[in-house]
Amino acid sequence: MCRFLAYKGEPIFLDELVCAPAHSLVHQSLHAIEAKTETNGDGFGIGWYGERSEPGIYREVRPAWSDENLRSLCEQVRSKLFFAHVRASTGTSTTRANCHPFAHGRYLFMHNGQIGGYGRIKRRLEGLIPDELYDRRLGTTDSEAIFLLALANGLPEEPVVAMARTLKQVRGLMNDAGIDEALRFTAAFTDGENLWAYRWACDAKPPTLYFRELDGNLLVVSEPIDDKTRGWREVPKGCSLVARAGSVTVECLNQAMGRLAA
Amino acid sequence: MCRFLAYKGEPIFLDELVCAPAHSLVHQSLHAIEAKTETNGDGFGIGWYGERSEPGIYREVRPAWSDENLRSLCEQVRSKLFFAHVRASTGTSTTRANCHPFAHGRYLFMHNGQIGGYGRIKRRLEGLIPDELYDRRLGTTDSEAIFLLALANGLPEEPVVAMARTLKQVRGLMNDAGIDEALRFTAAFTDGENLWAYRWACDAKPPTLYFRELDGNLLVVSEPIDDKTRGWREVPKGCSLVARAGSVTVECLNQAMGRLAA
Amino acid sequence: MCRFLAYKGEPIFLDELVCAPAHSLVHQSLHAIEAKTETNGDGFGIGWYGERSEPGIYREVRPAWSDENLRSLCEQVRSKLFFAHVRASTGTSTTRANCHPFAHGRYLFMHNGQIGGYGRIKRRLEGLIPDELYDRRLGTTDSEAIFLLALANGLPEEPVVAMARTLKQVRGLMNDAGIDEALRFTAAFTDGENLWAYRWACDAKPPTLYFRELDGNLLVVSEPIDDKTRGWREVPKGCSLVARAGSVTVECLNQAMGRLAA
Amino acid sequence: MCRFLAYKGEPIFLDELVCAPAHSLVHQSLHAIEAKTETNGDGFGIGWYGERSEPGIYREVRPAWSDENLRSLCEQVRSKLFFAHVRASTGTSTTRANCHPFAHGRYLFMHNGQIGGYGRIKRRLEGLIPDELYDRRLGTTDSEAIFLLALANGLPEEPVVAMARTLKQVRGLMNDAGIDEALRFTAAFTDGENLWAYRWACDAKPPTLYFRELDGNLLVVSEPIDDKTRGWREVPKGCSLVARAGSVTVECLNQAMGRLAA
Repeated sequence: MCRFLAYKGEPIFLDELVCAPAHSLVHQSLHAIEAKTETNGDGFGIGWYGERSEPGIYREVRPAWSDENLRSLCEQVRSKLFFAHVRASTGTSTTRANCHPFAHGRYLFMHNGQIGGYGRIKRRLEGLIPDELYDRRLGTTDSEAIFLLALANGLPEEPVVAMARTLKQVRGLMNDAGIDEALRFTAAFTDGENLWAYRWACDAKPPTLYFRELDGNLLVVSEPIDDKTRGWREVPKGCSLVARAGSVTVECLNQAMGRLAA
Repeated sequence: MCRFLAYKGEPIFLDELVCAPAHSLVHQSLHAIEAKTETNGDGFGIGWYGERSEPGIYREVRPAWSDENLRSLCEQVRSKLFFAHVRASTGTSTTRANCHPFAHGRYLFMHNGQIGGYGRIKRRLEGLIPDELYDRRLGTTDSEAIFLLALANGLPEEPVVAMARTLKQVRGLMNDAGIDEALRFTAAFTDGENLWAYRWACDAKPPTLYFRELDGNLLVVSEPIDDKTRGWREVPKGCSLVARAGSVTVECLNQAMGRLAA
Repeated sequence: MCRFLAYKGEPIFLDELVCAPAHSLVHQSLHAIEAKTETNGDGFGIGWYGERSEPGIYREVRPAWSDENLRSLCEQVRSKLFFAHVRASTGTSTTRANCHPFAHGRYLFMHNGQIGGYGRIKRRLEGLIPDELYDRRLGTTDSEAIFLLALANGLPEEPVVAMARTLKQVRGLMNDAGIDEALRFTAAFTDGENLWAYRWACDAKPPTLYFRELDGNLLVVSEPIDDKTRGWREVPKGCSLVARAGSVTVECLNQAMGRLAA
Repeated sequence: MCRFLAYKGEPIFLDELVCAPAHSLVHQSLHAIEAKTETNGDGFGIGWYGERSEPGIYREVRPAWSDENLRSLCEQVRSKLFFAHVRASTGTSTTRANCHPFAHGRYLFMHNGQIGGYGRIKRRLEGLIPDELYDRRLGTTDSEAIFLLALANGLPEEPVVAMARTLKQVRGLMNDAGIDEALRFTAAFTDGENLWAYRWACDAKPPTLYFRELDGNLLVVSEPIDDKTRGWREVPKGCSLVARAGSVTVECLNQAMGRLAA
């Protein structure tokens, strides 16, 4: 399983949350706080919004903890909205193009989870992506395929509904292929202004997803980067966190999926 | 021989000079304008000043032209003072630590040229570097050794005299070792506010060094990145370019060395 | 344009042909012998047959000339059949998965050339690859797609006819898409025992392809690695070189394509 | 702490011990068997003897577990004597030159452990290395410095005494510098025919070192790669394992050091 972190608030230097010696994503990637967590050494990435509408991206195949470029970059870059991700591969190879976050125009996306039996539906999943978006597929991960499909489904316009539609399609492909393994999914998406985070699974076990608001600054994480008691709230299973200017709400993904079904 | 570029002026995005499709350092690194020039594919680096006193550094071992991280970074980073360098190794290996620019505290340094017979004086050269600076030696290049020795010689306080002293010392070591090959040296140094560039050789053949002032913005390059007629001026052999707030002057390195001799 | 080399004969150490200081593929990759040739610094790869039926593969994204691992490997590995390739990208990114040679089971393939307008037919080209082979697509190049399609077309069984069929299909896709740019193709394929090399273009300009036999050892190259007068023979345009145990012949690709047309 | 493995016996493919899905060094590097062990993701290396007197070397900065080149290489290379090492840095940077094993002519060396307060004696330690060997220093680790110093001390001629002498010198430097931290050291050395492994510490806590003989094949490991009960014997503290043609003995390093003291 991967780990990720998304920040939206007053501009801060990335190193505060990404690289700090303790209680940061990079620290977590090497020294797991909870026994169950594994090493996240299969590449990493950051994406951040600066003066341009399109985000900057830095992705590398070596572990985040030993990358001096990442350290220097996070010391320099100050941003009001950024993503950071450390990867533990579920099978696909360790290349830059397979590292999160994925960018498309002014959008960023990152993912933690797994499509059970991905290899058996990969091609059909890719088949659902329209030509112009398929051209942007640079890697081989399920995560990138989901992102492109969600974009085709209207992710920028209806971030919750489009993701519900996408998960529904993926489940459909899995069912068609007779796959017993689960689809488990947490993810974050942004247009550079607003932030959405998703937590869903076809069984009762979606990966964890937490958020904390402090002085109007929002931090969304796959797992708390410090003591669990310090203001972290869990995004409920089957829900989506929606952070727009001045408001953070939780919407029901399951409901959105249900409406699609009807 | 390497190629480099230093900019000091109104804040601009790095991509304008570093990565643009034509007339940029990266373009030059692959497609040499003059027949004599070679490929600069042995690593690269950028150093820039942002909101902190210490510069950011990004250095990689692959060629600059194929690095998507460099491209994204240069699109995002806007700076009033930055260095960029593409490397053609003269023998030392292609590692990040051997890529320019080299940073020390708030200082940056980069170099083009070669110490003839470096292998035969490397150790004695390193022997001249004081302990606390020697601890900062991370690579094996002559360039980094010269930088550390120059720092020890007072580079921040007297950038021209200290460099003259350093070159004199290196020449001394070369003479002691009976080295016939030449010491040829162009370089740039900055403290984040002011900029110095050097052009010197023990024979009549220092590498080229040009600068251009446009609307108060200074660009210093190892070779012009566009048509030679477009305002480029050569830094004379044996001289140093000194760019302080509001003034760009040329000082005589040879003279400084002469005074040291006296 | 890329450069490549294929050897079949008495076992020799790879460094003789791949890494030697002069007259080797790696030497060529940096110091072009003919003015027209460019730098091949966008990754490289070697594939060789040892004691197993499946070949070994070593591919890297940095330039071949600065890779100490390649040097050491080529000093150690002795092989009776090996491929080496230095890449100059025609657009796709510099990743290991985009470097040649490509392996599938006991087969190796490498390519020089370009599908004009590849971006416009990429998806349809991939659509022709059957599921089980598509699963082996790890990169994004036209070269890998051609290889997988050719395998589906029976490359191991009928190396000349299957490649003719493949080129015909690609041309068909290009015509359907109204692409004016040319399809130019030289390539090499092996099953670990026999060797095939192809030279074809839809116009009169296929990339060059040479071979030399010396004491029963065959060397096939995109361009001669030493003086052109030293026994090199050109593979004629529209032809395929077929090297089986004890025989080297030239077969007509164009004819094979014609028969398919009929 | 790093992990390593040395094999001497009938030629076997490296993948059996280095890359196998379970009970291999690479497996260990990611999934620690004992809770106390950490991730070894800071680079890796293999060194092996083939047909030449000098060994082959492959070292990389990314984790061993995700390197497809390592996997292919280990499938192909069969050797009667090889070293493999996965690194967990104790502070120096993750570069190829800092990865083990280190080669010098036909010798290989690898190390696990740490010189306490290395930064404070690094320079004096390097000062003990003679010029011609110092030229071979390509990295910044304590391990490489110890190897070069041991070579100067006669490692090839007297592998146990020379290492005793080296450790004594390092201890001397540490004492002079008033360093309280410990010197802990396990290592392996070979000339391509015979194998030496060392286990020593200035306190009672040298890193572990085990060996197993099976049908005349010797395996030396920092930690057992399978069940501890399966024939593993510990190299006693303060001792050296000496494997020559047909004999494996344990010699006393402490004694050797004592004799030097007298």
